[in-house]
Amino acid sequence: MPKLPDPRENADYIIAEAAEEYMKPIKDIASELGITDEELLLHGHYVAKVDFKKLLERLKDKPDGKYIDVTAITPTPLGEGKSTSSMGLVEGLGQRKVNVTAAIRQPSGGPTMNIKGSAAGGGLAQCIPLTPFSLGLTGDINAIMNSHNLAMVALNSRMQHERNYTDEQLMRLSNMERLDIDPTNIEMGWIIDFCCQGLRNIVMGLGGRTDGFTMQSKFGIAVSSEVMAILAVAKDLADMRERMGKIVVAYNKKGVPITTKDLQVDGAMTAWMVEALNPNLLQSLEGQPVFVHAGPFANIAIGQSSIIADRVALKLGDYHVTESGFGADIGFEKFWNLKCRFSGLKPNCAVVVATIRALKCHGGAPIPVPGKPMPEEYKGENVGWVEKGCENLVHHINTVRKAGINPVVCINAFYTDTDAEIAKVRELGEAAGARVALSRHWEHGGEGALEFADAVIDACNEPNDFKLLYELETPLRERINLIAKEVYGADGVDYSDVALGKAKKIEADPELSKLGTCMVKTHLSLSDNPALKGVPKGWRLFVRDILTYGGAGFVVPVAGNISLMPGTGSNPAYRRVDVDVESGKVKGVF
Amino acid sequence: MPKLPDPRENADYIIAEAAEEYMKPIKDIASELGITDEELLLHGHYVAKVDFKKLLERLKDKPDGKYIDVTAITPTPLGEGKSTSSMGLVEGLGQRKVNVTAAIRQPSGGPTMNIKGSAAGGGLAQCIPLTPFSLGLTGDINAIMNSHNLAMVALNSRMQHERNYTDEQLMRLSNMERLDIDPTNIEMGWIIDFCCQGLRNIVMGLGGRTDGFTMQSKFGIAVSSEVMAILAVAKDLADMRERMGKIVVAYNKKGVPITTKDLQVDGAMTAWMVEALNPNLLQSLEGQPVFVHAGPFANIAIGQSSIIADRVALKLGDYHVTESGFGADIGFEKFWNLKCRFSGLKPNCAVVVATIRALKCHGGAPIPVPGKPMPEEYKGENVGWVEKGCENLVHHINTVRKAGINPVVCINAFYTDTDAEIAKVRELGEAAGARVALSRHWEHGGEGALEFADAVIDACNEPNDFKLLYELETPLRERINLIAKEVYGADGVDYSDVALGKAKKIEADPELSKLGTCMVKTHLSLSDNPALKGVPKGWRLFVRDILTYGGAGFVVPVAGNISLMPGTGSNPAYRRVDVDVESGKVKGVF
Repeated sequence: MPKLPDPRENADYIIAEAAEEYMKPIKDIASELGITDEELLLHGHYVAKVDFKKLLERLKDKPDGKYIDVTAITPTPLGEGKSTSSMGLVEGLGQRKVNVTAAIRQPSGGPTMNIKGSAAGGGLAQCIPLTPFSLGLTGDINAIMNSHNLAMVALNSRMQHERNYTDEQLMRLSNMERLDIDPTNIEMGWIIDFCCQGLRNIVMGLGGRTDGFTMQSKFGIAVSSEVMAILAVAKDLADMRERMGKIVVAYNKKGVPITTKDLQVDGAMTAWMVEALNPNLLQSLEGQPVFVHAGPFANIAIGQSSIIADRVALKLGDYHVTESGFGADIGFEKFWNLKCRFSGLKPNCAVVVATIRALKCHGGAPIPVPGKPMPEEYKGENVGWVEKGCENLVHHINTVRKAGINPVVCINAFYTDTDAEIAKVRELGEAAGARVALSRHWEHGGEGALEFADAVIDACNEPNDFKLLYELETPLRERINLIAKEVYGADGVDYSDVALGKAKKIEADPELSKLGTCMVKTHLSLSDNPALKGVPKGWRLFVRDILTYGGAGFVVPVAGNISLMPGTGSNPAYRRVDVDVESGKVKGVF
Repeated sequence: MPKLPDPRENADYIIAEAAEEYMKPIKDIASELGITDEELLLHGHYVAKVDFKKLLERLKDKPDGKYIDVTAITPTPLGEGKSTSSMGLVEGLGQRKVNVTAAIRQPSGGPTMNIKGSAAGGGLAQCIPLTPFSLGLTGDINAIMNSHNLAMVALNSRMQHERNYTDEQLMRLSNMERLDIDPTNIEMGWIIDFCCQGLRNIVMGLGGRTDGFTMQSKFGIAVSSEVMAILAVAKDLADMRERMGKIVVAYNKKGVPITTKDLQVDGAMTAWMVEALNPNLLQSLEGQPVFVHAGPFANIAIGQSSIIADRVALKLGDYHVTESGFGADIGFEKFWNLKCRFSGLKPNCAVVVATIRALKCHGGAPIPVPGKPMPEEYKGENVGWVEKGCENLVHHINTVRKAGINPVVCINAFYTDTDAEIAKVRELGEAAGARVALSRHWEHGGEGALEFADAVIDACNEPNDFKLLYELETPLRERINLIAKEVYGADGVDYSDVALGKAKKIEADPELSKLGTCMVKTHLSLSDNPALKGVPKGWRLFVRDILTYGGAGFVVPVAGNISLMPGTGSNPAYRRVDVDVESGKVKGVF
């Protein structure tokens, strides 16, 4: 492979484009992994889906590889380079001739078109081809949109028909009983995969008798959909089919939940999702296999790569690197207590990614703003800020250790970091019981990630004792208390009246009390206040509401004011996206 | 190929499923057609996209095959079996060892989940595999949704930011000039690919200062999007890119159009559509190649298979069968005066599909209702109704003859048709100057379509003199008059005040006056009143409004009350759709 453009001087998409000139056809990657032609569902020359059912049946007796989760310290608004470090790790393991696989999440069109960028990694540690990766891939998120919104079509049209017809007419015309849905108690909204604040609150069904049922409604971003959560946690098609009928869309006038099954739309919703259940296969810049499946946003959703992708990859790779969103308080906690609980898989190691930049931010430097130049303060050495910021790192190391697995700190290096700053992180990370590796994958690809790769290999081959934080028998408020104190460092938990009422109801319900717990909380702080950096002390978690995701199989305590629909800023990325009409290449997605 | 289930006793999807057990891998179909491996973009084993750019470049010197359009008489609400007859024709030509290709339109999720069914044909004349065909295929419609809705995200968020910031702030923060969009003069709405009457009229942007701009808005069905029209008529990526910037989203407070280019979203919109521009390749039940590209609804949209699909297929097949929606007044008129004008391609023959059932309906029998049993009156022979109904057939034959090409009438046979009824159609169709063929493809596949295939071969090899109905220099109202009188049989045209004002403005504008004309009119009658069957006399076309589709390149006169968003009925198809969790097969889509 020829030398790629220098990341110091070139945007990620320029590097990706150069690498794509030489990337291997995906059928070669698949064949090296031992995927059969029948199991490989090509989508063009460089992307494929894998028939997970056939593959898992064929390899059912093969032992799983080592299982590594990549998480991070509490990120700055710019991100810590978690995807970059995941790609760096597979490239580093590739350099060590390890048979490695990865699983990352498909980016949402919202941030890609708005401000965050593509989530394919960066520099010389990226997932390619970048354009399909960034712009919808094989259509899984679109399938989720269709599946989810079909339930809303069913809900609103059912409410119209129940308003317009008598019980006798409903039965005679359509063989339907009245559901008697309470229009003031609708749980579900619509979804779209863009950041659109203007769709957060709508009134629909205006017009006449045949123009739907007039009601308030809302749009969330597609990846926050319960159908996305189901994609992430479903073990197979039968499991998905069963979950799809348990989504609570509303309540009837007696307060009884109305589900997708009651609307008779759950079979059709599953039909739209059959293909999406097969994980997507792409590659790293250096040709390692990368599965891409399920969605981001571990703050407002489960935000994990899928269980199916991990199950497939663990059969194919000796080492499998998976990614969970944001800091260890958010993404890793859900990996630990939700995803691993559902899958039964046991991780061997968790990587906590940290940048010197973010450590400085936690130590007192000004908070950087996306789209703006980095504050001057980040330019020079400041070991004091780094040292202070390491409190946040140590907190996350301790979280990983509470799960009983071996932590590895990856210092995701930037060329402005100084030796003294790096030495301080090593000292404090090792003192907290973690392996610490400096990794220069962003600048040098796999060759820059050898120390990182070796640390992960060592951590995986050391004994560990994975254990969940709570059992499903633990009452909801006790679980929330455990997460708040043990993982977030809160002094305790307070509830709004609404949340308290729901918590009691859930605890008393024989089925709901056995669901998992998926917290919604800002990713920008260990606390529920995004402005508090480092390790906030003397605070209590405030639970504002508790949602029930009966299909995904968890209840969702919502901490603080957090929206399921981000907004598009005044200088969004789509202004700079274009297409070269000669080559067909998309420009400006990065 | 083994014997397939009897269509008299089995639903279409049962037959499709049986045929799919033996269908050829799509790479074999492509290879027989001479498509190279590089040009073939597989999507699993049985569906592919074709890189049209590479293929057309390679075959640029190869002469085109014969070009056949399939249209119909004025259909009943049940449809005339136009897709079925298109598939029957390619199967019949296949039986005659002709190198044949077809192009049909991708169905919309709205009707598929509501009432109409999948549009893949029927009986032994279908396009397979049926499930991907019916449920989103390779994602073209989803790409249209993302591309189109991104413009709406840009519009509403721009209006929010312009409300919240001063001119100076807009320039300093985002390098933007104020567009000063008039919130009471928004042209574009959102799209979704389901029938959802409850989204026809909405209020969005409720909430606070950062929750968007409060305004009325609307959703149309995805296939009615101007982006779909652009997909249908674009010649290549450069053409699509240029068109994508010309979509009028709103007007400013001075009445000047605001386009997608003004919103700086046209590049990103094109980026979402690059892959969708490659046509999809599937197969008929008997293994002939079938391209599927662009969308239906010739009543409210252009409703044609794409120009790109036809261009590709004409290079590959000696005979190419394309489909245009509904009756010759609607679909064929747009094929003739819009699609062929844009493409420069000249058809050799047009097929007018007729069923005895629909002819009886035009002759006086009760109008059948979808989802209800056929009225008793259709069970026995009634030559009188057929004879009277043939007035509608003859009207459409004359329309095809006005285009200067050779008409072939296909009697799409049903096993209850009698010899006397069929003889009457032959007599009157031939008297009107058409070849008439009885075709039993629904019941017998290609072997039942030999007479039909031979008639089409004969018609294609006879001289013809294709000519457009009007030139682009013809003023708009004169064009509408020509279409109304020559194609619909109206006595004249009346305009609402709004439509008249817009017509005058368009006629006076040097650019708008040169756009094409894409009529919106019910497909259920030659007139603008869906209740009038046969050949309505003594009526005048009422043009209620005129829309401008600057990107697609046409103005859209809207006749009568017709909605761009259909509604979901009280007994929709999604109630009966499900998935077999063992095989992964989708059941109940038909």
